[in-house]
Amino acid sequence: MRDRSTLALRVVDGRLSLLDQSRLPHEEHWLACDTVQAMIGHIRALRVRGAPMIAVAASLFAASRAQSGDDRDTIAEYIAVLREARPTAVNLAHAMARLQACLAAPDWRPRLVAEADAIVDQDRALCEAIAEHGASLIAPGEQILTHCNTGALATAGIGTAMGVLRRAHEQHKRISVWVSETRPLLQGGRLTAWECAKLGMDYRLITDSMAAGLMAAGRVDRIIVGADRIAANGDVANKIGTYALAVLAAHHRLPFYVAAPQTTVDAHCARGADIVIEQRSADEVRGAMNGNRWAPAEAPVFNPAFDVTPAALISGWILDTGVATPAQAAAGCFAAS
Amino acid sequence: MRDRSTLALRVVDGRLSLLDQSRLPHEEHWLACDTVQAMIGHIRALRVRGAPMIAVAASLFAASRAQSGDDRDTIAEYIAVLREARPTAVNLAHAMARLQACLAAPDWRPRLVAEADAIVDQDRALCEAIAEHGASLIAPGEQILTHCNTGALATAGIGTAMGVLRRAHEQHKRISVWVSETRPLLQGGRLTAWECAKLGMDYRLITDSMAAGLMAAGRVDRIIVGADRIAANGDVANKIGTYALAVLAAHHRLPFYVAAPQTTVDAHCARGADIVIEQRSADEVRGAMNGNRWAPAEAPVFNPAFDVTPAALISGWILDTGVATPAQAAAGCFAAS
Repeated sequence: MRDRSTLALRVVDGRLSLLDQSRLPHEEHWLACDTVQAMIGHIRALRVRGAPMIAVAASLFAASRAQSGDDRDTIAEYIAVLREARPTAVNLAHAMARLQACLAAPDWRPRLVAEADAIVDQDRALCEAIAEHGASLIAPGEQILTHCNTGALATAGIGTAMGVLRRAHEQHKRISVWVSETRPLLQGGRLTAWECAKLGMDYRLITDSMAAGLMAAGRVDRIIVGADRIAANGDVANKIGTYALAVLAAHHRLPFYVAAPQTTVDAHCARGADIVIEQRSADEVRGAMNGNRWAPAEAPVFNPAFDVTPAALISGWILDTGVATPAQAAAGCFAAS
Repeated sequence: MRDRSTLALRVVDGRLSLLDQSRLPHEEHWLACDTVQAMIGHIRALRVRGAPMIAVAASLFAASRAQSGDDRDTIAEYIAVLREARPTAVNLAHAMARLQACLAAPDWRPRLVAEADAIVDQDRALCEAIAEHGASLIAPGEQILTHCNTGALATAGIGTAMGVLRRAHEQHKRISVWVSETRPLLQGGRLTAWECAKLGMDYRLITDSMAAGLMAAGRVDRIIVGADRIAANGDVANKIGTYALAVLAAHHRLPFYVAAPQTTVDAHCARGADIVIEQRSADEVRGAMNGNRWAPAEAPVFNPAFDVTPAALISGWILDTGVATPAQAAAGCFAAS
């Protein structure tokens, strides 16, 4: 297991630690990941988050335990419970299946460690490829709206949708980014704003409810979001609020792109309606972090973490393998993968 | 000036006090309104809010000062500065024009006091008429989505859009209400949720970004919102996020209604594009009330308080005079008022 250091994870001498994303941007606090209970707690509480990052972190955790000498049955159990830690993102399930497959070999321990390292290296490479394909779509001076956080905090590399924006910025395309705050957990307001500022990008923060007015005013040229799962027909599950942006984009005839690695595709899931959408705690909607509550304490709440955007509303899927068109999606390019 | 007590305002022995809506639902704190500076501070900080309520409160303030003996020039100045306290709602401008007209008469003092009392009484009556017309549209068992707060806190009566829902509830129509929290100032999450709970209504709180998914799932039958200004062509300025709901409603072929009194119509404003939209403080978007900030301290922000919904997306305007249809709006019913 190689030493590594990315924006949100570190491996030093076989020991994994994760940046606590729930405390950003106020505090850069690093979390130990020594037990599977701690690891699952970090995932469920969104201290580690982002579909690719969850898969990467869970893989490195399993490798760290394998390297520390835990036996095969214990590692198998870790893999099984980690896979269930969050139901919607499919990257996690994919990564855990890869590690599980290593366990059959007599030399499972070095194999599993090497596989985890490969998962992380591949995630970085996938981000680079997505960024290149996506940035090629962007014209100089574009105003681009993004949702949630899909950057270096959400992956082992430069990100998915945010990686595209970053690459366009590095190419001096003078883009402006509209960052939607992404209630209830404010990944846009807390994390994407923080990443944009760190990268010196031109951005402005809005509430989720402001995107429509900006589109009507001609102040949005393109929308690019990430994905937690892509179904075989091209439907996309992503952070709650994504579907509204897709409908608004269609109404205003604006291009709406999804950026994600092939690991996000679930060819066994026929359509978006089959994707399990996680309901989360009412307190997330009754207030915000740090115990700040503004709604009545007993207010009944509906709190789905994700929504589904039908393929018909998507202009293109920016993958590591290239930009898939609606015609390719309709022809089954996701079913075949 | 008559003694009164509504959910959010009290007049006792000629002295006006207002419920501090910025502290709800945690605390029911009443504000003194003894100086015009205090009154304008309350309006700008949204301690008193809601287009009809602002007009009512400002009128009662002017009457209380007239009754206390302030001279005509001073009252004229109060009226002029109050009128500018918030630019978007037209009810305030209408009410101030009515009081201004009283100043020309030799017996201006009792006239102005009587006019302020009449403005309040009329607002209550307008709410009742809106509620009756609106409730007649609603079928038993409907799931209705509303935005912001348009209830007894926002008017001198039972409210506009919320008054319609309340009347349908009183008629035992077993409606369910989806309350969108209404970022950035959370009038839905703080105020409408609180009013629904007080009234024993069946409601659930969502973030603004969740409405689209509910519509797609067939869990919304109708959207009813209030208005801060209705232009001569039927375009509506209302709380930020309203326009997104209207586009989403059209996409899902759901009826989208605006409930407001005739005092909200601005026949001199030809179309929505002519309405001045107030930009508010960046800190409202960087966090929420009580100094809770989650975004980077220097995050650049775009924060329009309102947006404009074009008449073409509106199924009907529920007024005190009846429900105006798109055909009537197109024929100029708002231009004539």
